[in-house]
Amino acid sequence: MHTLYSMQASGNCYKLRLAMAQLGVAFRLVDVDTLKGETRTPAFLAMNANGKIPLLKLESGEYLPESNAALFYLAEGSALIPDDRLHRARMLQWMFFEQYSHEPYIAVARMWRSYVPGGLEEKADQFPVWEKNGYQALDIMEEHLSTQPYFAGEAYCLADIALYAYTHMANQGGFDLSRYPHIRHWLQRVADQPGHVPLSWRPET
Amino acid sequence: MHTLYSMQASGNCYKLRLAMAQLGVAFRLVDVDTLKGETRTPAFLAMNANGKIPLLKLESGEYLPESNAALFYLAEGSALIPDDRLHRARMLQWMFFEQYSHEPYIAVARMWRSYVPGGLEEKADQFPVWEKNGYQALDIMEEHLSTQPYFAGEAYCLADIALYAYTHMANQGGFDLSRYPHIRHWLQRVADQPGHVPLSWRPET
Repeated sequence: MHTLYSMQASGNCYKLRLAMAQLGVAFRLVDVDTLKGETRTPAFLAMNANGKIPLLKLESGEYLPESNAALFYLAEGSALIPDDRLHRARMLQWMFFEQYSHEPYIAVARMWRSYVPGGLEEKADQFPVWEKNGYQALDIMEEHLSTQPYFAGEAYCLADIALYAYTHMANQGGFDLSRYPHIRHWLQRVADQPGHVPLSWRPET
Repeated sequence: MHTLYSMQASGNCYKLRLAMAQLGVAFRLVDVDTLKGETRTPAFLAMNANGKIPLLKLESGEYLPESNAALFYLAEGSALIPDDRLHRARMLQWMFFEQYSHEPYIAVARMWRSYVPGGLEEKADQFPVWEKNGYQALDIMEEHLSTQPYFAGEAYCLADIALYAYTHMANQGGFDLSRYPHIRHWLQRVADQPGHVPLSWRPET
């Protein structure tokens, strides 16, 4: 059985819990709290030198960091990865967009606003930057979703899981989704997928 | 024939020129200068709403942004993507590492230090952050390369192309590679690959 090193509140960790629930992949959960420095201990750094979660420990004993790479590993051969080359590249396009143009603003704003005590004051000069770039990412998503139901086209895939994670709780970063009807409809389509689980879901132990 | 919208000095654009040279894929080059705002024009934004290069226009007329997603598209079925599932995930792990933990520091420091007039003064408060995080990325690479010749294991693949691009010119961002012997040996192994081309290379017109 795989083991997932995970923080329940983290959207990057939620991606893997959601994908494994939908794929029917059994796994064990180990809670790690980044806010208490638990990803910077020598024991954790020996498993992932980059000191980040999620970290997937495969049944074989190999450690796989980077949420979107672990998603790809888990979903190979399933309907969560498109069959054709162009749609597979589109899926990866939006997964790289998520990590470069979305998460560093929308997820980081959420962390400092809603999880770090005093974060709103400590990062007061950064919030305008996160807000500007986060809304730019949402604008791009809204435009795309005005033409297609999912990020890689007609079918739900890993790109939707990757972008759903922090978009569905963007309000905790101070982002107002009321002006984004296409995003809100897409969030509902994702939540309506068979086997969908919420952020709070944990596997039975 | 594919068309690549590219800036010659950009490492992200270089990734695609290098991969296409090694794969023997013919393409046309269109020069775009981000420093002159040429990726923010209405015409460019109609091709890529995220306003970034590289942008690959496929022979079919489809536009594919995100350098690492375009690399994956181009290299499918070639030796630049590992055959087995775990090594393919390792390749993606390092490509996501490149975009999240490496490029935002090492490439961005290079741009502001070596390409934007007055950038060193304008971003004086950011350079210490870029330096700390950029050296952390290099430390992680050095440790990994002390155990394996390439990022996904025994064979050169897309992860090496993605990380080579900005690492081989990290000095332009103020990073000193003299303390990283394993990285320097890996840079040489990459440069010795069949069909390797330097940053300055352009396809014949």
